Amino acid sequence: MIKRDKVSDLLKSTEFGKEVTVMGWVKTFRNNQFIALNDGSSLSNIQVVVDFENTANEILKKINTGAAIKAIGKLVESVGKGQSVEVKATTVEILGESDAERYPLQPKKHSLEFLREIAHLRFRTTTFNAVFKVRNALAFAIHQFFNERGFFYLHTPIVTASDAEGAGEMFRVTTLDFDNPPRDEEGKVNFKEDFFGRSTNLTVSGQLEGELGAMALGQIYTFGPTFRAENSNTTRHLAEFWMIEPEVAFADLEDNMNLAEDMLKYVIDYALKNCEKELEFLKGRLLDEEKNKPQAERNELNLIEKLRFCLDNDFERITYTEAIEILRRSKPNQKKQFNYLIDEWGADLQSEHERYLVEKHFKKPVILTNYPAEIKSFYMRQDDELVNGKKTVSAMDILFPGIGEIVGGSQREERLDRLEARMDEIGIPKDELYWYLDTRRYGSAPHAGFGLGFERLVLFVTGMTNIRDVIPFPRFPKNAEF
Amino acid sequence: MIKRDKVSDLLKSTEFGKEVTVMGWVKTFRNNQFIALNDGSSLSNIQVVVDFENTANEILKKINTGAAIKAIGKLVESVGKGQSVEVKATTVEILGESDAERYPLQPKKHSLEFLREIAHLRFRTTTFNAVFKVRNALAFAIHQFFNERGFFYLHTPIVTASDAEGAGEMFRVTTLDFDNPPRDEEGKVNFKEDFFGRSTNLTVSGQLEGELGAMALGQIYTFGPTFRAENSNTTRHLAEFWMIEPEVAFADLEDNMNLAEDMLKYVIDYALKNCEKELEFLKGRLLDEEKNKPQAERNELNLIEKLRFCLDNDFERITYTEAIEILRRSKPNQKKQFNYLIDEWGADLQSEHERYLVEKHFKKPVILTNYPAEIKSFYMRQDDELVNGKKTVSAMDILFPGIGEIVGGSQREERLDRLEARMDEIGIPKDELYWYLDTRRYGSAPHAGFGLGFERLVLFVTGMTNIRDVIPFPRFPKNAEF
Repeated sequence: MIKRDKVSDLLKSTEFGKEVTVMGWVKTFRNNQFIALNDGSSLSNIQVVVDFENTANEILKKINTGAAIKAIGKLVESVGKGQSVEVKATTVEILGESDAERYPLQPKKHSLEFLREIAHLRFRTTTFNAVFKVRNALAFAIHQFFNERGFFYLHTPIVTASDAEGAGEMFRVTTLDFDNPPRDEEGKVNFKEDFFGRSTNLTVSGQLEGELGAMALGQIYTFGPTFRAENSNTTRHLAEFWMIEPEVAFADLEDNMNLAEDMLKYVIDYALKNCEKELEFLKGRLLDEEKNKPQAERNELNLIEKLRFCLDNDFERITYTEAIEILRRSKPNQKKQFNYLIDEWGADLQSEHERYLVEKHFKKPVILTNYPAEIKSFYMRQDDELVNGKKTVSAMDILFPGIGEIVGGSQREERLDRLEARMDEIGIPKDELYWYLDTRRYGSAPHAGFGLGFERLVLFVTGMTNIRDVIPFPRFPKNAEF
Repeated sequence: MIKRDKVSDLLKSTEFGKEVTVMGWVKTFRNNQFIALNDGSSLSNIQVVVDFENTANEILKKINTGAAIKAIGKLVESVGKGQSVEVKATTVEILGESDAERYPLQPKKHSLEFLREIAHLRFRTTTFNAVFKVRNALAFAIHQFFNERGFFYLHTPIVTASDAEGAGEMFRVTTLDFDNPPRDEEGKVNFKEDFFGRSTNLTVSGQLEGELGAMALGQIYTFGPTFRAENSNTTRHLAEFWMIEPEVAFADLEDNMNLAEDMLKYVIDYALKNCEKELEFLKGRLLDEEKNKPQAERNELNLIEKLRFCLDNDFERITYTEAIEILRRSKPNQKKQFNYLIDEWGADLQSEHERYLVEKHFKKPVILTNYPAEIKSFYMRQDDELVNGKKTVSAMDILFPGIGEIVGGSQREERLDRLEARMDEIGIPKDELYWYLDTRRYGSAPHAGFGLGFERLVLFVTGMTNIRDVIPFPRFPKNAEF
C-alpha cells in the first residue's frame, strides 16, 4: 500500500507540524529550493521546500518540470504569498524523471492549438485540469438531477442497424474483409455475412430506443456517445460526442421545456457550487483571451456573471413564427448584414440568427418552439393548427449565448396514423421501424423528450471556445489520435 | 402541461379523499371493474376501480392489457389484499388502445427467451422493470462512489486507431465505400482516404487513455461502452457492453484491490438500500427458476442472502500460485472431473476452476493475484521475484460466485525499460503507442487500475442468468435488432 497525502487535503489542513508524504508532478523548481507540486487533486499546487544543503546534487538536478517526485516532511504554515501551507521536506525521492530538454510542457504559456497536438499530456496544465474538473462535475450533476427525479438511466445501443432516422451521415461498423468481401448473387457486398448478419452503423441518437423505454418505465434518460460522419471542421462539431437524451411519458411540449430548463439550471448551479476555484480560473483565462479581441466581440458579462445570469432569468419562450417576425424587422436584416436574409416564414435559422435573438435581442437563453414541419424530424408531433397555411410541429430548441443550439427536442407524434402518414410522405421505411411503431400500436400516450449535446454544455460552462478542448481526445475528420 | 400523479407517490400517500389523476398502462382488468395500472415509476401496480355502471361500454371494452389510460378519481384506502391504496375512478379515458388479440405481452408468464425477441416491449414486465431499476441504481452508485472520492469521470474515445492492446478482436469503423474503395499504388485498400485518415476501430478498453488521465489528474474512471467482435454465443458475453475502468496514480496492487473491493461493496450496499422491493421480487423469481433444477445446482443462499454475504465478508486474497496448489489437490482434479485438469503452474484458469475456488473451496469472493506474465497483458507490472523460475505480474482478478471474473486489473508497469522490453518481446509496435510510453518518459510513477464489466455486475446483483437480459438491447453475433 502506498501511503500519501493528497494535495487537496493538505491545502485545507491546519495540522501544522505533522509529517506528511506528498507525491505529484513538478510544475516549477525555483532557486534550487521551491517546488510547485501538483498531483491533480487540486487546481492549486503545493509548495515543497527542499533542504538543498542536505539533498544530494544528483537528486536536485532531476527535480525538473514534469518529473514525478515523492517528498516527506513537515506541514508548515506558509510565509510566502499565494499559499497558506507548504511542506518543509526532509527527503525528496525522484519517482520518474523528466528530461528538461525534451519534455513538451515547458513552464510557460502554450497555445491551445499546440496542447491539442499533445492531448495525452495537456491534462497536466492548469487549464485542462479545470476544464476536466468542470466536465466531471457537470456529468455527475446530470446523473444526480435525473436520479433525484426517479428517471431510469438507460443504455441505448451504440451499434445499430437502424438507418432510418436520417439525423446525419453515419459510420459503418463491420468485420468484413475489405480486400475480399463476401458477395451475393448480384455481385454486391453481402452484409448478411457481416458480424451482426446485416449492415450496421454507429448510432446518431438513442432517442428512438429511449422512447421504447419511456413508454414502459415512464421516465428515462440516456448519457452515451453518438456519432456523425460529417466532414465539418468547425469549433462546434465533433465526429464523436456525448449526448444526454431524456424521454418522458405523459408529457407535452411545455413539460419538456420545463424539464430542460430545470436541468440546465440545476447543472450550472452545481458547477458554480462545486467548481468555484476552477471557474474563477477559467473566468480569468477567458478575460485574457478576450484582451486580444476588439471591444465589440468581447462578452459583456464575465464567465461567472454569465452563468449566474442563466440561473437568475427565465428562458425566453417564443414560437418560431414570432422569431421570424423579430428577425425580419431586425437591423441586421434591414441593413442586409446577415449572410442569410430572413424574408419569409419557413426559412431554417442559421447560427447568426440564433445568436442575434439570444445575444442582441433578448440577451438571455431563448426557447424557440413550433417550427415548420418541413425543417424538422418525422417523429415530432404535428400541431393541430396551421400557421400561414403550413404545418408546424411541437418542437423546441434551446439557444444559448455564444453556443447557439444546446438542446433540441419535441413532443413526439403519438398518433399512429399521423406518424405513418408522415413517414410515407418523406420515405422512411415503416417495416424497418416496426418496433418504434409498436409503441403507438399498443398503449400509445403523449410523450416528449430532448437531446443535450454534452460538449456544448461543457463549452458554455467553461468558457472555452473550441469544442476540441472540452473532450479528452477529440475525433474529427482526419484525426483519431491517441 | 400534463398534470398527473405518479403511481410511486400515490402508493406512499395517505391523503385519502384527495382527487388524483393517474396515467399508465393496463396490466390486467378484472370483473369489468378492477384495473391493475402501472406507469413504470414503481414495480407495483395501483388498483383503479372503475365505476362500470356509469362508464360507457365502448370505453370499458378498450380497457385491455397494454392500453394506456388516464383515470381521475379519489384516492381511497384499499380494502382488498396486497395494496394499501386504490383510486376510485370517476372518469376513465383511453389514451392509446391495445388490440387484445395482437398485443404480444399477454397477462401470463412469458419465457425470457420470448421476451428477448420483443425487447422493445419487455420493459413493461415486472421482471424487466426490476432489472432495469437495479441497473440504474448500480450505475448511479458507481458514479457516486467515485465522485465522493474525488475521481475525474473521463470519457475515453470510442473510435480509436490503436490496435495494439490485443485485448480481443475488433470492429472496423469506416466511411469507405465497400463496393469501390480507394486503393493505393499496390492495389490495397487505402485507409488514408478513410474518414479519420487511417484505419480505425471500436475501442476494446479505455485503459490506455485512462492511464494518461491518471498520470496528470491523479485519479480517473471511465464508464462507457466497449466492444468485442468475438463470435461467442454464450450467456456471459456481449459484443457491446459497458465497462468501468478506474486508474489511480501513486497506487500499487494492494491499493487497487482495496479500491475494487470497496467499490463492489459500496454499490451492492446501495442496491440493497435503494432497490429493496425490486431485489425481493428478483429473489422470488430466482427461487422459482431454481425449482426446476436439481438440488445440487441450486444456490445455497437466496439472492439477498448472497448479496449480504458479499458485504459481510472480506474477499479472500490469494496468489495464482496458491490457487494452483489448491486446485491441483482438489477433489475434482484428483477425480478428473475438471474438463481441463490442472497439472502444472502456468495454466490459464478456466471458468470451472474459478467457480470451484469461489463456490466450493472458499465460499466467498476471491481475489487472485500475481499471475504468470505469459498469460497476462504487456502493461502489467513485472514482479521482482521469480516464481518457479518464471516471471509473474502484479495482476489481480476478482472472482464472484456464479459469475466468475467480474473485475480484472493490475498495477501497471511504470518502468520504461521493462515496459519496452516486454513490448518488443511480444511484438507490440512502440511507435504506435508513443503517447502511452510518454507517461513513462516524463514523470512516471507507480499506478494501478482495473476494469469492471458492468453487465456482469448487474447479472450478479439481479440474479438473472443470461447477460442478454440485463442490457436493454443486447448485441451479439447475428443480432443488432432495434
